Amino acid sequence: MSRIRFALAQINPVVGDIAGNSALIRDAVRDAANAHASVVAFPEMALTGYPIEDLAFSPDFVDESEEGIRVLAGQLDADGSGDIAVIVGFVRRAATPSFGGAIAHNSLAVLFGGEVHSTYDKQHLPNYSVFDEERVFVPGHEPLALVLGGVKVGFLICEDLWRDEGPVETLAEQGLDVVVVINASPFDRTKDDNRFPLLVRRARQFSAPVAYVNLVGGQDDLVFDGDSAVVDASGTVCARAQRFESTILHHDVVGTAGGSGLDVRERTLNLLAPVITPDKDELDDIWAALVLGVRDYVTKNGFASVALGLSGGIDSAVCAVIAADAIGADRVFGVSMPSQWSSDHSQSDASDLANRIGCQYDVQPIGDLVGPFEQQLQLKGLAAENIQARARGMILMALSNQHGHLVLTTGNKSEIAVGYSTMYGDTVGGYAPLKDVPKTLVWELAEWRNRAATDNGEPAPIPQNSISKPPSAELRPGQTDQDSLPPYDVLDSILDRLIDRRESISTIVKAGFALELVSHIAHLVSISEWKRRQGAIGPRISRMAFGRERRLPITVRRSTL
Amino acid sequence: MSRIRFALAQINPVVGDIAGNSALIRDAVRDAANAHASVVAFPEMALTGYPIEDLAFSPDFVDESEEGIRVLAGQLDADGSGDIAVIVGFVRRAATPSFGGAIAHNSLAVLFGGEVHSTYDKQHLPNYSVFDEERVFVPGHEPLALVLGGVKVGFLICEDLWRDEGPVETLAEQGLDVVVVINASPFDRTKDDNRFPLLVRRARQFSAPVAYVNLVGGQDDLVFDGDSAVVDASGTVCARAQRFESTILHHDVVGTAGGSGLDVRERTLNLLAPVITPDKDELDDIWAALVLGVRDYVTKNGFASVALGLSGGIDSAVCAVIAADAIGADRVFGVSMPSQWSSDHSQSDASDLANRIGCQYDVQPIGDLVGPFEQQLQLKGLAAENIQARARGMILMALSNQHGHLVLTTGNKSEIAVGYSTMYGDTVGGYAPLKDVPKTLVWELAEWRNRAATDNGEPAPIPQNSISKPPSAELRPGQTDQDSLPPYDVLDSILDRLIDRRESISTIVKAGFALELVSHIAHLVSISEWKRRQGAIGPRISRMAFGRERRLPITVRRSTL
Repeated sequence: MSRIRFALAQINPVVGDIAGNSALIRDAVRDAANAHASVVAFPEMALTGYPIEDLAFSPDFVDESEEGIRVLAGQLDADGSGDIAVIVGFVRRAATPSFGGAIAHNSLAVLFGGEVHSTYDKQHLPNYSVFDEERVFVPGHEPLALVLGGVKVGFLICEDLWRDEGPVETLAEQGLDVVVVINASPFDRTKDDNRFPLLVRRARQFSAPVAYVNLVGGQDDLVFDGDSAVVDASGTVCARAQRFESTILHHDVVGTAGGSGLDVRERTLNLLAPVITPDKDELDDIWAALVLGVRDYVTKNGFASVALGLSGGIDSAVCAVIAADAIGADRVFGVSMPSQWSSDHSQSDASDLANRIGCQYDVQPIGDLVGPFEQQLQLKGLAAENIQARARGMILMALSNQHGHLVLTTGNKSEIAVGYSTMYGDTVGGYAPLKDVPKTLVWELAEWRNRAATDNGEPAPIPQNSISKPPSAELRPGQTDQDSLPPYDVLDSILDRLIDRRESISTIVKAGFALELVSHIAHLVSISEWKRRQGAIGPRISRMAFGRERRLPITVRRSTL
Repeated sequence: MSRIRFALAQINPVVGDIAGNSALIRDAVRDAANAHASVVAFPEMALTGYPIEDLAFSPDFVDESEEGIRVLAGQLDADGSGDIAVIVGFVRRAATPSFGGAIAHNSLAVLFGGEVHSTYDKQHLPNYSVFDEERVFVPGHEPLALVLGGVKVGFLICEDLWRDEGPVETLAEQGLDVVVVINASPFDRTKDDNRFPLLVRRARQFSAPVAYVNLVGGQDDLVFDGDSAVVDASGTVCARAQRFESTILHHDVVGTAGGSGLDVRERTLNLLAPVITPDKDELDDIWAALVLGVRDYVTKNGFASVALGLSGGIDSAVCAVIAADAIGADRVFGVSMPSQWSSDHSQSDASDLANRIGCQYDVQPIGDLVGPFEQQLQLKGLAAENIQARARGMILMALSNQHGHLVLTTGNKSEIAVGYSTMYGDTVGGYAPLKDVPKTLVWELAEWRNRAATDNGEPAPIPQNSISKPPSAELRPGQTDQDSLPPYDVLDSILDRLIDRRESISTIVKAGFALELVSHIAHLVSISEWKRRQGAIGPRISRMAFGRERRLPITVRRSTL
């Protein structure tokens, strides 16, 4: 019987940055070694970042990944960690390309003694939801189990764990001491409702602990929450990492294979105080996901600051606070852009917000900018309304051009669903923090964030008036959103059924909504697909985010979904 | 021995419009019956349109398709065509959903006697290039062969024909008289280089004719060229339809199964004059594809007219002529939007073009519109340049809001590749006719179109000056594209290698290009991915179009592809 310390290194790599990610890995191995770990597991595709999408078709990139993993093995040895077994996800060239042209496996390597000791290729490739892995990878066919310092270890990659057939069956028959699963499993609101029951079920099936290590960080529209954990053979969670941050989780595993296998470092082990991070409020998790999504988009793309329009409304207020939480209020540049139709409170609420969070603040009235357009083109009605939103977009982009800000666009999921936005106007921007947040959830998050601040003895960042006043685009006198849309609680209920749950119009009507209203909403959703195709990306928090998760034609002659 | 007339009905359905597509099918069956056909084959997904993308997950839509095919069978019988075997592609519910949630097969139905006589489910689902069929469909497992009026007919759907294993093998062993393949196979410049050699190879393998019927029409970014054909057992093309238009191709097949099988209508047959449409010039095909793409986007989405900026340059001139060819010059609205930096010829070339093609024409100077922005925001340099392009975008969108025009954006593939465009400026629009056309090909097409006109005794539509002058965005005095880009022949050679052929930088350098230049271009391509994600769709003519065919992260830390 041996006892070996496993470290699950929940890191935040950057897609494509093999050198930078290798440095992250070396640092984490050093830290784990200091905590007496003999085996360190990193997430799926830790070397390359995830998802690499069609970069997987690039022979150069695959070569760089293979070269990178060999170099990393040597570096770890040179770092004095050659006697630690290091498990790293990477991309590996396949012996035969797929019919569709995929050339690589989604693989893991076990690094030991300065070399790539073994590899395992992911067998089940998810090709649904946000995943296109059948497109970009070649599936593997061989299971992998190794003895590391007397511990019999089975290996899986993410989707492999979710399917009943294949490698799970194979490993279940092998009397293992632990199964290590490396993952790149993005956050959504319901993820833990599925993830932990699965870990419990598999651990019981294997009669062995499951050590689950997941990526953390934002990558375009995906946010990885980490949530690395160990579930023991009885189905008890015996270790669980902090979510939404880089961290290392340790767990000691007892081996039954005597002294055989790879001769990994064994040290006198200190006793390990179990880390079991408790569940948080769902709103807390969502807020953390949005903050991490914004922070990583900004920093990984090298922006020094963000700019956004502050209308005095709830969406821009919440976006500003997310941005301030993500990168610091001093790097947030808010612009109030009042028109003749703007209410007094639109400016006062905007400046109140800016004062509360301490961001940079500017006022740029649009009256002198839109007047010439209205006169020269003799604009009326919708065209005149839209020109106001577009002038605001031009101001923000001009400030971006002059100062290098990333422009945040503040539209929420409800608006984006029904096309309640002006193209090239309020849709302008590189990142949309609330893209996947329905309006009613924006309000909940605002209340939650204010409550969290006051609970913490800090001033509430979001003006109460921005939360309580009726939403309005203020593009004409006295306009409110509810002139053209149903109340948001009704709208969001219908949209949740129509989009997230893919219910039919007749099912929604049976649930108590008016046929005319539901059909109208479905029609709006359908005809605004062209707007969504040109929309900024934003962090996904649902199981049906707009973008790669929901692929619908623009040209379609039906209103139901 | 029987002799039966097959009709291949190359139709242009609209995605989602089951009622409208059924009407198209009934009309074509009527026409084919008048030409003495006993079997009529329609393309893949003819009932639903293709691609339906994630509509395939909609239980409602699948129900509508199944109901639609039954109703169609009854209607055909009521039309007096119940004794014609009609082969129609549709979507059919699968007995068991896939792990990823797909609920339907991509199927064909054989309609006869007012009923759905048989069905076949596509076995090979393409999941590469522009296709996501593993995502949205459940694969079938059973082959289908039937005797129709003494003719032994095997059935395949599109991708099934391209794979050596599976249904092709099964059918090859069955001594068939003909194999009917229904397709939704989009055009690209090289398609016929692959399609006809495959048909020849399969016909020889089957020792039987292959009857290939393909969709025609534009659907978002895809253009289906039709090109339906029959290749006989010796590998000779014995019938081939006109491309890029709706048509019916007839071919008589000799049966060896006596009087057995479905008792389809047999009439005294007239002798069939073979239709073998000859190949055209590649530029002719590309032009036809662009015209069809624009026409179908406009008409299927219900626009009465299009608007575009006319700069006097080659891109906008070619776009205007494509639009005029697609929907008639009277429905094309061209706007010259000169600034203080615009050359005299920019206006004179624009008005010359408008006169030549006879489109509507307006001049809207931007000086009075951009001045207030420059002053209020104290804009300089790039920010001041971009505000001009954005004012033009605002003008076009205002005209669209007032008059209902679809705005065409005129950027070409070379510009889009390197991000040589102003976001929310010249990128504004719902459809981008030249999105997949490199600049050098824009020139070739312009010369070709002028030559085609003069060969036809018509005036050349594109002013020679627009073709011959150096390209310029005219955002500052004396600016030309070559201030910041290499000559377009060099740029396009590099882009073709980098993007279309996925060559590495080192390979391109070995081919004779400077390392610094290639690295710079690769860097520009990488950092402008965010612009492409927000770009309009446009017709695909290459085998590596931007959009669903090339899926790359925005956030990525490397410049090579």
